[in-house]
Amino acid sequence: MKGTLFIIGMGPGDPELITKKAENCLHTLSIIAYFCKKNEIGHARQIASPYLIKTPTELRFEYPITTEISHHTADYKKTLTDFYNYTASVIQQHLDKGNDIGLLCEGDPLLYGSAIYILEILQKNYSIEIIPGISAMSGCWNRLQLPIVRNHQTLTVLPATLPLDVLLTKLKQCEATVLMKIGRNLTKIKSALKETNLLEQAVYIERVTQSKERILPLVQLQSEQAPYFSLILIARQDSLQ
Amino acid sequence: MKGTLFIIGMGPGDPELITKKAENCLHTLSIIAYFCKKNEIGHARQIASPYLIKTPTELRFEYPITTEISHHTADYKKTLTDFYNYTASVIQQHLDKGNDIGLLCEGDPLLYGSAIYILEILQKNYSIEIIPGISAMSGCWNRLQLPIVRNHQTLTVLPATLPLDVLLTKLKQCEATVLMKIGRNLTKIKSALKETNLLEQAVYIERVTQSKERILPLVQLQSEQAPYFSLILIARQDSLQ
Repeated sequence: MKGTLFIIGMGPGDPELITKKAENCLHTLSIIAYFCKKNEIGHARQIASPYLIKTPTELRFEYPITTEISHHTADYKKTLTDFYNYTASVIQQHLDKGNDIGLLCEGDPLLYGSAIYILEILQKNYSIEIIPGISAMSGCWNRLQLPIVRNHQTLTVLPATLPLDVLLTKLKQCEATVLMKIGRNLTKIKSALKETNLLEQAVYIERVTQSKERILPLVQLQSEQAPYFSLILIARQDSLQ
Repeated sequence: MKGTLFIIGMGPGDPELITKKAENCLHTLSIIAYFCKKNEIGHARQIASPYLIKTPTELRFEYPITTEISHHTADYKKTLTDFYNYTASVIQQHLDKGNDIGLLCEGDPLLYGSAIYILEILQKNYSIEIIPGISAMSGCWNRLQLPIVRNHQTLTVLPATLPLDVLLTKLKQCEATVLMKIGRNLTKIKSALKETNLLEQAVYIERVTQSKERILPLVQLQSEQAPYFSLILIARQDSLQ
């Protein structure tokens, strides 16, 4: 009998924002796996800390990517594909021995999550259960007490990694907008928002619901680079439409 | 001392999909409030059932809207505005007496939620805390094990209440798409998706994570009307981009 892979959404950061289902699952697991940066504890792993009462075996998967490789190159794609294939093969070995594994994922597993690649490699031949998590963007708009969409409004989620011309085209079509993956794209984003007259309405949030949380109007942000855990929200402030 | 209003996201339907924070909050409350249809228990209230160990006082707010009024008329807007003002005034009376109240909300409170209107009426003068919930759309893509967006892809959430020409324009600009508020707009949606060559990829989900859950390709759906708790998802199936 093969084991089951539980892909577990761990929410935006506050351990209290995981679901009851995730908690119950974490309590039973004897093997957990997670992605992390080199020499860091891993965001999903950190959120799980209060729930790991059985001190499970930990499979750490450190991202191989450095900032030297552009995200749009073939090298980048190959490095990541190899990494996900390796990760899936390690998980597979444990499942084949009949062990259940929990793959811990920050935010919502299937919204830009690395778990997507593992799911696609393993879903044909293995039993998989996915537990949704509160997305970072949901963590943000609820933390800000900012109604993001109502009534007939549309919501668009844009990765800031898109080229400037694509961002400009899309921003002109958007109503409420969430910008993800800010990082080194901050300068590009600011100029795109300025050009589309959206800069004044944009709110910047860093490490939402975590201890070093930071919230400010984007126009007041001085940095040229944002940490990985940052988002920009632009809501429509109209009343009942 | 005035009481605090807790706006609590109750997730898509499965009671295990509420957060630990929501659970802890529900355990302490002696007054809960929620919206519901006439003669129905109320979706958010139903999800809360296993957690109401203190049998709190219940404030039921029944939607006054009937299907006879079009959603785009002034009558519709006035009826709803009056209803939200009334709801807020009742909640306010309890807060003024120093009582905390939990307003239970299906899904994510600030994503098309009725709680938005209550928040906006009360947020200036009252202490409010919002607890995020798993949105219905997140419940859907995780339930389907369908990666919704990855890498540089964009996600758009469209209310099916939009006029056909607006839907057509937006669908042509979209990558991954979630269609909300299907209900009586099913025929319109189907023809819009057919015209934009998206019908074959569309998945229909009804009552996700609930006991009468129903999932099928949209092309196979025979009905002309969908229940309130239904969604359509269109994901991009590309591999690592």
